[in-house]
Amino acid sequence: MATTLAPQQYQACIEACQDCAVSCDACANACLHEQDVQMMARCIELDRDCAKLCYTAVSFMASGSGFAQQVCELCAQICEACAEECEKHADHMDHCRQCAEACRRCAEACRAMMGMSA
Amino acid sequence: MATTLAPQQYQACIEACQDCAVSCDACANACLHEQDVQMMARCIELDRDCAKLCYTAVSFMASGSGFAQQVCELCAQICEACAEECEKHADHMDHCRQCAEACRRCAEACRAMMGMSA
Amino acid sequence: MATTLAPQQYQACIEACQDCAVSCDACANACLHEQDVQMMARCIELDRDCAKLCYTAVSFMASGSGFAQQVCELCAQICEACAEECEKHADHMDHCRQCAEACRRCAEACRAMMGMSA
Amino acid sequence: MATTLAPQQYQACIEACQDCAVSCDACANACLHEQDVQMMARCIELDRDCAKLCYTAVSFMASGSGFAQQVCELCAQICEACAEECEKHADHMDHCRQCAEACRRCAEACRAMMGMSA
Repeated sequence: MATTLAPQQYQACIEACQDCAVSCDACANACLHEQDVQMMARCIELDRDCAKLCYTAVSFMASGSGFAQQVCELCAQICEACAEECEKHADHMDHCRQCAEACRRCAEACRAMMGMSA
Repeated sequence: MATTLAPQQYQACIEACQDCAVSCDACANACLHEQDVQMMARCIELDRDCAKLCYTAVSFMASGSGFAQQVCELCAQICEACAEECEKHADHMDHCRQCAEACRRCAEACRAMMGMSA
Repeated sequence: MATTLAPQQYQACIEACQDCAVSCDACANACLHEQDVQMMARCIELDRDCAKLCYTAVSFMASGSGFAQQVCELCAQICEACAEECEKHADHMDHCRQCAEACRRCAEACRAMMGMSA
Repeated sequence: MATTLAPQQYQACIEACQDCAVSCDACANACLHEQDVQMMARCIELDRDCAKLCYTAVSFMASGSGFAQQVCELCAQICEACAEECEKHADHMDHCRQCAEACRRCAEACRAMMGMSA
């Protein structure tokens, strides 16, 4: 529903980026309240970066910006780095497992979007 | 799906804010390409402000911030101002009609959230 | 220099918010690399919130938004909460001491701006 | 003053991005209130994109993010596109002339920063 006003070809990617932004913000906060926070520092950093780029990507796509693709290309890279880190903790922490999945889906959606809008 | 990691009580409000942010960014862009842009200047300004606050509200809620309520309170005010302006153009412009609806839903969700998390 | 295009009455407040946003982002990162991260969790949270609101406030002021005052009012509150937390660590950590000062200056500039622009 | 807590090597680039973000937000707003807004539509779009990336770049640098360089690389591209458009109106509109200069300085600072931090 949320994205019917945005350019049609970006719908799936907007939703994946919205999901990923929220997952990363929530995962960073959950990491910050784990007992061994120090072990989660790298995860918190990447969650933070990934959330920021995802919100930015949503806004560029929703605005129909001519730079939407380039923002999504960078977004895909940061999503993959964040997924990789979250996956290290996925066995023990459900928030990292869920966040890694959201990051993988988002990276895929960004790469699909880049292919489409040539 | 996107918000399952975020605090449970914020789910509906996060979705309404995501929808509203995207609708406002898209509406501003559509307004900017109308023939009579000058008539849409106030709408573009309010779309711009409303989108920014909505993204900010999503991020505060997703992070479980202690200031989420206060950000949502301000968000509701801006949503209402934006809805009021968009409604003036709703008969002639579908993007303004849809955006006004997204803004009204978001304002309502923000006010409901404020009531809940006392 | 940076703000000469922005509304004249906001110059001082824009600069204080820019300073505070950067200080909070930098302090959060420094906190995250302290040995006892757990002790810094609350500080990291408030730095995160404060940075976000400061960037938002800068953008509202630079855009000449009609909601600039209200954003600055909320910004002042978050700055004060962040300053209070940072001050607890100011004796031992220079980043917290500097960040607390930036937050206090920013809160003051936001309150002064609110008084001015009636 | 504002950036003393941020990584030393980013100081100049942070200041240039702060300046550019504010200039673009202010220029977009000034364009929106020109008599012939339609002629300024492209400028408003690029100002909007450029402001967003500049704020994002500031935050990545201030946080000491490992992706700061890549964000600045994209930022430089958007700054150059925005400068090019603003320069078309620079003779008649002082806000476009000043904004174009801020964009050129920012693009240069971003490229210099990318060279430095190998």
